[in-house]
This record gives sequence, C-alpha cells and structure tokens, in this order.
Amino acid sequence: MNNAYEYIVYQADSMLQQLCKTRRDLHKYAERGWCEIRTSSLIAGRLTELGYQVLTGPDVCLGSARMGLPSEEQLEAEYKRAIAQGAVQPFAQQARCGYTGVIGLLDCGDGPTVALRFDIDALGLSEEHGTGHLPCAEGFSSVNNGVMHACGHDGHTAIGLGVAEILINLKKHLHGKVKLIFQPAEEGVRGARSIVEHGHLDDVDYVIGNHMNESQGNYQIGLTSGATLASTKIDIFYKGRAAHAGTAPEKGRNAMLSAATVVLNLQSIPRNGQGGTYINVGTLHAGSGRNVICDSAKLEVEVRGETTALNAYMEDYTRRIAESAGNMHGCSCEIKLMGATESLESSPDMLSYCEKICREKLGLSVAPLSSKAGGSEDFAYMVNRVRSHGGKGLFFNTLAPCSGGFHTKDFDFPESFLCNGVKAFCGLTYDLLTGGRP
Amino acid sequence: MNNAYEYIVYQADSMLQQLCKTRRDLHKYAERGWCEIRTSSLIAGRLTELGYQVLTGPDVCLGSARMGLPSEEQLEAEYKRAIAQGAVQPFAQQARCGYTGVIGLLDCGDGPTVALRFDIDALGLSEEHGTGHLPCAEGFSSVNNGVMHACGHDGHTAIGLGVAEILINLKKHLHGKVKLIFQPAEEGVRGARSIVEHGHLDDVDYVIGNHMNESQGNYQIGLTSGATLASTKIDIFYKGRAAHAGTAPEKGRNAMLSAATVVLNLQSIPRNGQGGTYINVGTLHAGSGRNVICDSAKLEVEVRGETTALNAYMEDYTRRIAESAGNMHGCSCEIKLMGATESLESSPDMLSYCEKICREKLGLSVAPLSSKAGGSEDFAYMVNRVRSHGGKGLFFNTLAPCSGGFHTKDFDFPESFLCNGVKAFCGLTYDLLTGGRP
Amino acid sequence: MNNAYEYIVYQADSMLQQLCKTRRDLHKYAERGWCEIRTSSLIAGRLTELGYQVLTGPDVCLGSARMGLPSEEQLEAEYKRAIAQGAVQPFAQQARCGYTGVIGLLDCGDGPTVALRFDIDALGLSEEHGTGHLPCAEGFSSVNNGVMHACGHDGHTAIGLGVAEILINLKKHLHGKVKLIFQPAEEGVRGARSIVEHGHLDDVDYVIGNHMNESQGNYQIGLTSGATLASTKIDIFYKGRAAHAGTAPEKGRNAMLSAATVVLNLQSIPRNGQGGTYINVGTLHAGSGRNVICDSAKLEVEVRGETTALNAYMEDYTRRIAESAGNMHGCSCEIKLMGATESLESSPDMLSYCEKICREKLGLSVAPLSSKAGGSEDFAYMVNRVRSHGGKGLFFNTLAPCSGGFHTKDFDFPESFLCNGVKAFCGLTYDLLTGGRP
Amino acid sequence: MNNAYEYIVYQADSMLQQLCKTRRDLHKYAERGWCEIRTSSLIAGRLTELGYQVLTGPDVCLGSARMGLPSEEQLEAEYKRAIAQGAVQPFAQQARCGYTGVIGLLDCGDGPTVALRFDIDALGLSEEHGTGHLPCAEGFSSVNNGVMHACGHDGHTAIGLGVAEILINLKKHLHGKVKLIFQPAEEGVRGARSIVEHGHLDDVDYVIGNHMNESQGNYQIGLTSGATLASTKIDIFYKGRAAHAGTAPEKGRNAMLSAATVVLNLQSIPRNGQGGTYINVGTLHAGSGRNVICDSAKLEVEVRGETTALNAYMEDYTRRIAESAGNMHGCSCEIKLMGATESLESSPDMLSYCEKICREKLGLSVAPLSSKAGGSEDFAYMVNRVRSHGGKGLFFNTLAPCSGGFHTKDFDFPESFLCNGVKAFCGLTYDLLTGGRP
Repeated sequence: MNNAYEYIVYQADSMLQQLCKTRRDLHKYAERGWCEIRTSSLIAGRLTELGYQVLTGPDVCLGSARMGLPSEEQLEAEYKRAIAQGAVQPFAQQARCGYTGVIGLLDCGDGPTVALRFDIDALGLSEEHGTGHLPCAEGFSSVNNGVMHACGHDGHTAIGLGVAEILINLKKHLHGKVKLIFQPAEEGVRGARSIVEHGHLDDVDYVIGNHMNESQGNYQIGLTSGATLASTKIDIFYKGRAAHAGTAPEKGRNAMLSAATVVLNLQSIPRNGQGGTYINVGTLHAGSGRNVICDSAKLEVEVRGETTALNAYMEDYTRRIAESAGNMHGCSCEIKLMGATESLESSPDMLSYCEKICREKLGLSVAPLSSKAGGSEDFAYMVNRVRSHGGKGLFFNTLAPCSGGFHTKDFDFPESFLCNGVKAFCGLTYDLLTGGRP
Repeated sequence: MNNAYEYIVYQADSMLQQLCKTRRDLHKYAERGWCEIRTSSLIAGRLTELGYQVLTGPDVCLGSARMGLPSEEQLEAEYKRAIAQGAVQPFAQQARCGYTGVIGLLDCGDGPTVALRFDIDALGLSEEHGTGHLPCAEGFSSVNNGVMHACGHDGHTAIGLGVAEILINLKKHLHGKVKLIFQPAEEGVRGARSIVEHGHLDDVDYVIGNHMNESQGNYQIGLTSGATLASTKIDIFYKGRAAHAGTAPEKGRNAMLSAATVVLNLQSIPRNGQGGTYINVGTLHAGSGRNVICDSAKLEVEVRGETTALNAYMEDYTRRIAESAGNMHGCSCEIKLMGATESLESSPDMLSYCEKICREKLGLSVAPLSSKAGGSEDFAYMVNRVRSHGGKGLFFNTLAPCSGGFHTKDFDFPESFLCNGVKAFCGLTYDLLTGGRP
Repeated sequence: MNNAYEYIVYQADSMLQQLCKTRRDLHKYAERGWCEIRTSSLIAGRLTELGYQVLTGPDVCLGSARMGLPSEEQLEAEYKRAIAQGAVQPFAQQARCGYTGVIGLLDCGDGPTVALRFDIDALGLSEEHGTGHLPCAEGFSSVNNGVMHACGHDGHTAIGLGVAEILINLKKHLHGKVKLIFQPAEEGVRGARSIVEHGHLDDVDYVIGNHMNESQGNYQIGLTSGATLASTKIDIFYKGRAAHAGTAPEKGRNAMLSAATVVLNLQSIPRNGQGGTYINVGTLHAGSGRNVICDSAKLEVEVRGETTALNAYMEDYTRRIAESAGNMHGCSCEIKLMGATESLESSPDMLSYCEKICREKLGLSVAPLSSKAGGSEDFAYMVNRVRSHGGKGLFFNTLAPCSGGFHTKDFDFPESFLCNGVKAFCGLTYDLLTGGRP
Repeated sequence: MNNAYEYIVYQADSMLQQLCKTRRDLHKYAERGWCEIRTSSLIAGRLTELGYQVLTGPDVCLGSARMGLPSEEQLEAEYKRAIAQGAVQPFAQQARCGYTGVIGLLDCGDGPTVALRFDIDALGLSEEHGTGHLPCAEGFSSVNNGVMHACGHDGHTAIGLGVAEILINLKKHLHGKVKLIFQPAEEGVRGARSIVEHGHLDDVDYVIGNHMNESQGNYQIGLTSGATLASTKIDIFYKGRAAHAGTAPEKGRNAMLSAATVVLNLQSIPRNGQGGTYINVGTLHAGSGRNVICDSAKLEVEVRGETTALNAYMEDYTRRIAESAGNMHGCSCEIKLMGATESLESSPDMLSYCEKICREKLGLSVAPLSSKAGGSEDFAYMVNRVRSHGGKGLFFNTLAPCSGGFHTKDFDFPESFLCNGVKAFCGLTYDLLTGGRP
C-alpha cells in the first residue's frame, strides 16, 4: 500500500504549475476578511467541479458568531468589485454579506472524520511596486489598492484546492470522512469561531491546520510543542459631549480624558505571575477640533496571554478599566468584540505522528521540535473544540525561505514549497483514513 | 446717647492688659479643632461669671453635623491634657468628646437678635522657638507640641470675652437679644455647620464675624465686597489586596494604581467658564512595602469654588472620579467628608453700615472697600442661613501689622489691635439694639 | 460740519444692496485662512479702483511671522480653485503662497494715522443645506465643500469695502492718514501677528477693529471694558518606533504612552491664583494598527489666559510637559506654533469716545458698557502694538439678531446691520481726522 | 575514604542540639541587614575560637558598594542595643557602622578554592505572640520589636557555624582553600555585591549557597535549573515647592503630579517579548497638608527580570520615566539605589554533581530537578563573578515542612532539618578538596 504515498508525492509535485496559477490569481485579486467573495466563489466552484458536497453562506459560519465584520456598505462595495473581477455565481451571491466560508465534504463510509483547515483572507496593506518584488515583476501583484496577501493565505488556499483534487482521487481507498474547511477572516482572529459555533467541528476526530513559516536550516516541515497566544481584539468607543473649550469647558463631557486614562491604565494592568501577558492600544482617534471639548474617542486594543486563562485575565481587566474610565468623566463606553482566539497547542502524539509520516512516508525533512510558538492563530478554536470531545488536533508549519517579512508590503515566498503542504495534508489524511493512528 | 460709643471705646482701650492676658494664656495652651476643652471651659466659666445664660456640649453643636472629628482616643488624650493644664469643671466634662462650642445668651427684651461669632481653635503646627519670635521671648509660646495659634484665633477669643464684658454692662440700654457664639474647629472649615444645623442661627436677624488680617496702609478695619471661596475637604481611602509583587502580582488589587489615577484625573477636572475653581491633593500615603502590591491608600483632598455652585461642581466631579478610579482596579473606595463651607458674602448694606459706625461713632479708620476675598471661612454657613430667612450678615477684618505669615510657625500680631475688634463688635451691636439699622 | 456725519449715515444706508452683493459673493466662495486668494484679489482690485494705494503679497504679512500655514500642496490647490472661481489678476498671483493680506492706504496730509482692521477668512465647516437657512434659500451658500463663513467675516469684509468708498469721497475734508487693513487668517488667531511684525502698526495713532455679535436688547453697537483671552495654539507631534505588539513590544518606542501622559498632565496644569486659565487637547490621532506599537501621535492643543502673562504660564508649562512626556518613552517631540494672540483691552477713553460719536453724531444706539469679553481675537496684537508706543486702540461690536450660533453650520446674520458697521468706522475716522480726540 | 562522608553525616546529626541553641539565640536577638552587630560578633568569635583566619569590618564588604544602608543614627542605636544584648568585643566594634560581614578562611595548601555563603540578617516584621507559634512557646521569639527571622537566615547561620566546625576537623584531609562567607543584608538584595566588589570571589573556583525551602514530598534537598529573577530596588525622591493651594497654586511645584505620573508610567512600561519582567511601586508618601501644594514625594520601587538583561531594560526605563516625570512639573528627582541583584543560575554540571554527592555519599534524598525558580537572591553576584572567570556555582535548597509562610509573622521551620544543610555543604566541600569534580 506504500505506493499511495508515492502517488501523493508524485501528484503534489506534478501540480506545481497549477498551484502557482491558483495562488497568483488569488494574490492579484486579494480580498480582506469577510470580503473574500471572489475567492470563496472560486473555491466553491472548484470543489463542486471536483465532486465534493459543498457548503456555503450561512451553512458554514454562524452569523452571530462572526467577529469584526465590516459595515454593510463596505460589504456591498466589495461584492460589486468581486463581480467585476470575475466572481462565479451562484457562489458569489451566497458569499455576500460576510458569509465567505466554504466547506467541502467527502464521505468515504465508516471511519474517523478528518478536518483540514485552510485560511483564505488577505491583509489591509498596500503592496510594494518595485521590480525587486516578484509578484510585481511577474505581473500578479494586487490590483486591489490597500489589500495584499502578505501572510501567505493565497498559498494556503492553493494548497487546499490541490489537496482536494488528490484526496478525491484516492476516495476509494479511504474509510471515513474528509472536511475541507476554507476559513475566512483569520487575520484579526475573527473567523474560526463562527465555524466552530456552527458545529462543524463537533463530529471531527482529527483536525489539521497549517501555516507557512520562515525556514529553519533546510527543513521542510516545522512542528511546535509550545502554545500560540490566546488573544482578544476589542474596540472601545467613548461618547462625551462637546462644548466650547475657551468659555464653557464645564458643559462638556471630556472623552479625551477618558481616552488618556484608559490608555495609561490598560498598559498598567499588572504582570501575571502565571505566565506572559501582552496588551496594546494600537490606535486612538479622538476629537473634532482644537477649541472644542472632545466628544468622542475610538481605541483599537488587543490583549494576549500565553494561555486562554491569562488572556481572560487581561480581557476582564481591560473591560473593567474601560468602563471605569468612561464613568469617571461622564462618558458612555461601548466595547465591541472585533476578534478573539484561544491558546493553541497540538496534541502531543499528533506531533510525533506527523513527524513520522512526513519523514518515513513522504520524504519530507522535519525540523527538531520547537517549544517556541508566539503569535496568535484562531485555528485554536477548532483544535480546542475537537480536543474537548476527545479528538486530536495538529498545527504544522510548511517551511520556506520567505522574502520580506510576514505582514510587510514586500513579503513573498517560493512557490515550489507549496507542494510540501499538499503532501503533508494528503499523507496524514490518507494514513488516518486507512487505519493509521497517532 | 453718643456717650455710649465713648464708653465702648474707653472700656475697650482700658481692657488691653486683660485682653493680652487672656490671649497669651490661650496661646500657651493651644488646642486644635474639637479638642478646645480647656479653652471652652475657660470661656464658659467666664461667661457664666459675667451673668450670661450659657450653652455648652451637645446644646451648641449638632453631633452628627460635626466634620473632621479626631478619633475617640485622641479626644480622650486631649481631655486628659486639658485637665492637667487647668481646664475648669463642669465645663471641661461638657466639652468632652468633641463638643467644644460655647454660646452665651443675653436677653434684653424686645428687639432684633444679634449674633457675634468668635472662632477659638489652633492649628497643627510646631511653634518657632527663636527669641526673635515674641511669644517665645515673652514666655507664652505653645507648650503643646505640634499645636499653635498661628491664625490669631487666640486673639479672636480674647476679643469675644472682652465684648461679653462690655455688652452686659450696657444691658439696660439694649433692646433685643445678643448671642455670643464661640465656634470650635474653624480650621479645616469643620465646625460652623454643626452650630447652624442645630438651629442657633434660625432666629438671628444680624450675624457678625471677624478675622484679623494683614494691615493695608494704617487702616484699622477692612471690608470686602467679594466672596470667600466655598470649599469641601474630603479624605479618600482605597482598600485593595496585597500580593507578592515578584511572583503573583495578579493576585493583588493594586490600590497604588487607583491612587495615581485619581490624582491625575482630579487635577484634570476641566476649568469652569462660570468662575474660578481649585483642587488640591495635598497628601497621599500608600502601601506597606517595596515588594508587596499596595493594598491601601489615603488621600487628603480639597476643592474650592468662587461660588457654592462652582464648589459643588468640583465636589461632584471629584466623587465620581474617586469612585471610578477605585472600581477600575477592583479596590473599594471610601470618601469621608472632613470639612465644608459655602461661599461667603456680606450683605451689601451691612458693609456701608459697618463703615459708617466705625468711622463716625468709634473713630476707627476703614480701608477702601476691597473686592478681593480669597481663602475660605465657614462663617459662611452662618451668614447664608441668616440671609436665607431675610436677616443680614457681616464679615469684617481687624487689620494689624502681623509678623511671620498666617499659618506659619513664626506668626504673631500686635496685641494692641485687639481693642479695635472689641470696639467694632460692641459698637455695631449697640447700634443695632438701640434702633440703628443698616 | 455736522453734515459730514449725515453724509456718512446716508451713504451707508444707501449702499445696503451693494454690501449684500459683496457679502453674498464672498459667502458663496468662502476661503479659509491663508487661502483667501479670490477674496484678497477682489479686495485689492476694488481698493485700486477706488484710488487707494494698495499693498499686497509679502508687503503686507511678514512671511516668517505667519502661523498655522497650510501645506504648499493645499495652497496650490486653493490657488487653482480661486482662479477657477474668478480671482482677479495680478492680485491672485500676489496672494499665492499664503500672502493673502491687503492694505489700502489713503494719505490726506498732516494729522494722525488711523488704522481700521477687517478680517476676511472663513471656517472649516460644511454649510447647512436646508431651506430654513437663508444663504441656501437665496442661493449663495458656500460652493466650497467644508468651508463656510460661519463667523461673519464675509460681512466684515463687505463693511471694509463700504468704508473704503465713503472715506475716499471725504478725502478732501480729512487731515492725516487712513490704513485699511484686510487681515487674513483670524480664525485660529494666525494672521494679525504677521502684519504687526511687518511694522504696519508702528506709525499708527488709532487702531479700530470690529466684530459682529449677538444683539443685546435692540442696541446696535456694543462696547466691552473687559479683556479677551490671550491664547496660544500648538500642535504636538510624537515620533516613536513601531514594533510587533504581541512578540516584541520592547523593541518599540510607544508614542501612545507619551500621548496619553501628555493629555492627563496638560489638563492637570494647576489653576492660577492670578486669574482664569484654560487648556484643551482638542484632537488626538495616534497609531497605525491594533497589533503594532504606536509610532506616532499628533495632538491639537490650545491654551488661554485672562492676561497675556497667564497665557504664557500655560504655554510654558505645556511645552515642558510635552517635551518630558516624549522623553519619558524615548519618543521625539516636535511642537509647532499654529496660532497665538495676546489679551485685548480697548483704551478706556476710546470706549467713551466711541459711545459719544455713535450716539450723538451717528444716531446709533449703544448698549451699556459690559465687562465680560471671553473668546480670543488676534486684533489684540494690533491694539497692543499701537498702545505700546502711546497710541490708542478700540474694539467694538456691531450687534445683530443672528441666527444659528457663531461657528455652527446654520449661522447667519441680517444684512441690514452691516450699515451700522460702516457708519461707526467712518464716523470715528472722520472725527479723528478732523481734530476730534477721545 | 568513604568513612569521611560517614564522619560528616555522624557529626552533623550529633550537633543538632548545638545547631538549635545557636539558631534560637540568633532568633531571639534578631537583627536587620547592616545591623547584624551582635550576630556578626558571635560568628567572628566562634570562627576565631575554631581556628579560622577571620576577616571582619571593611575587610569584608567594600564600603561604597553596600546598598540600602540605614542612617548613621539607626546604626548607632543598633550598636548600643547589640552591646546591651551581649555582642562580643572587639568584633562588635569592627562591625559598627554597617560592616557586619564576616569571612572565615581555612588554608589547606594546594588545590581549588571553595567558598560557602551563609546569609545572616532578619526582616522588619513583628513576630507572632501566640503560643501556637513555637518560638513563642519555647521562649525564643524575637525580643527586638519589629525585627524577626522570618526567612530562616538564623538557621542558615547556625548551619554555617556547624560546617565551620566539621571542616576544620577534616583539615588534614583537604587540599585547597575554604572560604566561609557570612553575608549581611541579603533581604532587599543589598549585601552580596559589596563582598564581590571587594574581590573575595575573584580567586574562588567553586561557590555554593543554600536557602531553606518548603518541602516537596519527603525530599531533603531541592535543585533548580531555572533562574532566580534579577532585581533592582530604588527609592525615588521628588522635591517641588510648597504654595497655598487655594490662592496661589501656580507658585508651587507640584510633586504630587510627578508622583502620580511616575506610578502610572512605570507600571505601563511595555512587556518584553524576551521574557518575564515585573515592576512594583510598593509605597508612596507625599505631601504635608491638605491645602498645601505637595512639595515632596518618596516612592519605593522594585523591578525584576527573568534575566539580568531584562532587569536592566526595566531599570533603565524606570530611571528615564522617573527623571522625566520630575522635569515635567519642575521638580527635582533623586534616585537612590537601595538593592540589586542579577539573575542566578547554577552551573548545570554542579546540579548533577550535587545530586550525586547528596544521594550516593550523604544519604540525602533529592527532589527531581525543577525548572521553576522565582524570587530573587543576591547570591547571584557571587555565582556570576565565579562563573565569569571560569569557576562554577551552585545554589541548593534544604527542604523542610515549614509552618506559616516565608516572610510572615508566624514563620517557623523544624530544626532537625538543619543537619541536612550541614551535611550537603561539608560533603560537597570535602569532595571538591579531595579531588572530586563535577
């Protein structure tokens, strides 16, 4: 039966041109979280074409559990642009209004359910225009101003579609179910929760996710025992009352004072002896004119913790400070949840299992296990839900010598490494659905 | 009838030695607010001796309306010291437990009621020991360490007892009633309210108070049309929870953060376009050790306003900030009222009336009317209560070339000027109770 | 000679249609401070036509003393718009680059020099579009989006051109010199200083300015003995360093912390016992993204004081706090002066003189002298410069029942009242240049 | 040669009564850091008696490198008390003025130099008086009010004297040198640096220190691979200028504002992605009276870091904030270093070496290696100095079921466990000086 792995390796390597083509198309028409209408329609179209049972629209994401949704006006504008840029119907219509997730189901009879997660959104960044930047030199840099795939999700999506093709070709050998989850709005950790809350992970036995990462040595696959940071993103709005600053300041309710107080006090939340915590007030916009008592302020805030509990400590404390700082100066305080994720750790035996399959079956080199995670990833919700009912979760890295840096305007990655991601997903799924166990 | 004024002037000048003796005795055994047990007992004894109907103890001050009372332990210690220093019984016993006000009543039949206010308390200050300081050179500086008459209330009390002697000698000429109010705890504006709340000003037609003040030219009496500042004194207490700062700061509730936040925000209360406002956080004591999360903090705060309404704006805002700064860090917040007074303005016609009597009947020179008041004086409660039911109030200054400065350890005043205070009080009262009107 | 006053009154009333036409044209093409290119060119054209010697461009404003200048790009864009909207050459060209002041000189031989000041700029406000708003109903509301004459300077300018016409017709009766100063950028108190620093007030014996004001009763002219507030407008810029907030916050320099600290501490500047002071941090914009350590912040701040000295206390303290708050977090701090004015008081004898001329010679009703000024006005620089060398200054109000409120989008005033301004300026100038003296 | 270890074990067990007696005597006459005059004199007397070459006074601690020294008055008062409580001359005299360290030297010819560190100071705490507290029941609780051995240093000192006795008895078997360092002022991490700066660790090959710790299971010895926290203790003093808060606040320089600003900003120092950092403003005392602008403030602050570099980040940032917060309000800022230590990690091979000797040679049970250190210990300076020139350092715990908690008023430990400390120190030293190596 070992020739199935050889098949996987061969197929993955053979589809490099196709992976590139997909990736470059997505890169050129980059779309931000909840606005991946064209992206989503192409995915749904391809999965349908391949023969998957496809879920779209409100069947994928629970509407009320989506976080950090753009305004309706923005969503509509994005819809129009997507149509203009070749979004496919009826899928574009289904993705409208912030329902851009897609799930492809493959039922291969009795056996475990394996879910694979691929994130599909771009970032709010204007791409580099210099010819030193490959997407620019090759003519596939983003045509959507201020939006750019600077975190590799275009590659992740291409991997997902490649995986979809190989797995369906292996269908007759498989025993169990495959769920291919194409998740919107991973940036800002806004999307995963809505898929989990819809229940799509409740029957899953194994869930596997991936993110490309900077290479270490010449290794192709990276595994981490440490946890990513749990995180919560909130916007704080203060509403006060304007007044003439030179003649009647006492008639105002000074939202500027609430804003300054909240910044200093948020940043002052005591360190936690249980582990690392972080906080940032990233932006603050307040006031309408020099001689007017400031009547409104908006702050974008994020907290993080090495564990979900540490993050909760930060979030609870943040909310209390925010409310109090408003009360203090007679300003109303509104707090909007813009994103959230838990802390993510792979199941320990999944790590060694992945290492074994990659090395022994797929010929992929695996870097020594690292304990350093850092950053946040809302795939955590999926892993934690699966683990909560006894299943197992795995998060692995596809390593590549990237250029620029993640989340910068000149980020890029060598496309040949996409094949490795395809191999790992397919190899693990094949093994699990043919009786292999971690 | 003009010879009555001549009598007053002659008697006041003749009693200089006696005024000095009284003043120096009070100066030597200085007592702070609510602790004027020896002082109070000597006043009550003298008024009784002169033939006044005398009120003491809870008959003078409404217990619950006293502000900024020392602890029971302190009051008891002060009682013992007073006894040791010659306090007179049964009056000392009556003054025990913070009931140190005395009122002397003189009923001269039909006619208006005139109340005269004399404040009797000293300050918490250690007196200068150098021989350049007259009380020291003459051997009557305070024997009570940390307590000193540095605001002239010893002189005010001596004036009051001089006035008592002259008025009772004029009794057969008077028509109406005299109330001599010896008020405790003027410093920190803590005492007047309790006398007003007891009702002693409710039947008063004219209330007159006095404070010595720095001379202006060679004038003897000063009058002011402007208002003294309304003020509120509060103590803020935060109670948090201690924890080890190096290993478990998150287990604490950091009262230091509440304290720092309240300081900056109190000081940030917006200016008021309606008039002048002031705030001060005078003292802050917080924490128990360098490596322990601070679990308690105490702040002494005062606010002021050019009007009672402006002061209320400051006090209300202060209370809101204090509560919010506690909530913000999970600390309880207790606010204790330690003193309060309203804004004080003399009735306009009392000013011109006083000027006329002093100049024409008593031979006292009166400085030009000033509009600059400044400072706070809880005699305001008495004036405002009397004015609220249609009576009139007057606050005047006895001017003298004082040395040192008010509220400093080398403050002193020339005693000969005390006679002018006696003359003004007696002359005004005589005129009012013999048909004179402003 | 009294028929000269009758002539003035008659002429002023007769030119109402012309005043309205001028005012409405200026209103429709409203221009902000330093951008009054069309406005300035029309003024210079008209003065030239009338026969005045006209100064424009750098001959009016000292370049380096102009405050709060827009960027070169903005100035160029404004120039292009002005040309498109009918600005007159060569004056538009002369006003380019923020040199929009105009002075008209009339030399009538020996005698005192009288300067009259008219401010010409609009505000950054979008005008009301409802038909309840007269300029809209009558079709002369601002066609320049976000710019509006909401403070009546369109009327002031119309008055100035009316005055110019009458005075030159009276030339043969006058003895002395007339300077008509059309000042740019009064809003934000940015323009007057550059005219004063150029020296235009150094030879002036009498300087007179005017602002329309809300009516009091049915009076037509208002006079105030009190002072307007001195004020300084500054922008504070902090430059820090960005870093990833979740993985390396220590690599940043957190401008958000400098900004929050400066807000609370500026607002905490202690009250001043010498008189009223004000401060406002009107706007604050900081940061680039939620998960990035904030690397820049901009604050718009103003301070005010009842006297120039009190304002200097506030400004000095503000600068010290701003610098320290930057240093504290390793951020550079740049402070830009955006506007400034001193405190303004009319010469006392000019007030009574104005009252007399208006009442007795011009038939204008004058409201009782008020002591309440409030607000700030950079005409102060002119008055103070003239008074500093022994001349006299006057600031008077033309009263009218305005609608909306000053500086609001539905502000308007009844145009018939413009005639009163013309009368007062002309009557006072005529009297001064025919031997009259305050 | 194994009977030397048997000798050590036997002797250590046999001296239990003596260890108890020494410990109880020290406990009863507890002395705080730099005031251990009686303690020091008894140690020096005993070492002399045993035959050690003894260093005392300025020969042990470099005067200028001592941190957090009490005032001269306190030191003198402590000297008098020590004499009254039986301090031994001439050693008490030598320990006067804060020179309370003692070193005992034993030269056994060629071979490595082994230094053993014992800390000797008590804490500023009032001991529990209830009979449930053994020192109280047995009559050896502290007679020095407010001073208590609540961290076991009385036991450490007793161990040191026991070790001294055994090692000198083994002298003829040893090859090398022994340094017994009795260190003052470990609490507040104030003393070790002065011994290191004197050069006493410069010729040391192995340095070993110990602290008792709460038992884990029934293990007797604990070892930790993790690092203790580096820490710096500073006092911040602000000096401003007083003024009357109600009439002339602008004349003051408000140290309260500097103090509040420094608290919020210190606590706001950004987290560090390199590892854990801590900060605490433990105490703050500011101001002299409610109605006086605060003219002075004192803050007790500590920072900590998981590494010496992280601690330096915190200390540098703290100093910058402190200076800036003073400048901001015109207050001078003085920063006093009150204590400091680096991060401490044992040499890895010393950990396994210690484990081996304890288990195999001394019959002591050793708990599994822990990676959790926490807390701070200025023995770090000694270890780091020795390691810096190629030597090795070890810090181990003597485990015991302590009652109360460390640094609480009812802390106590079972004395029988002292023998284990003696065994470990002697066994390791014996092995090292007879050719054993880690």
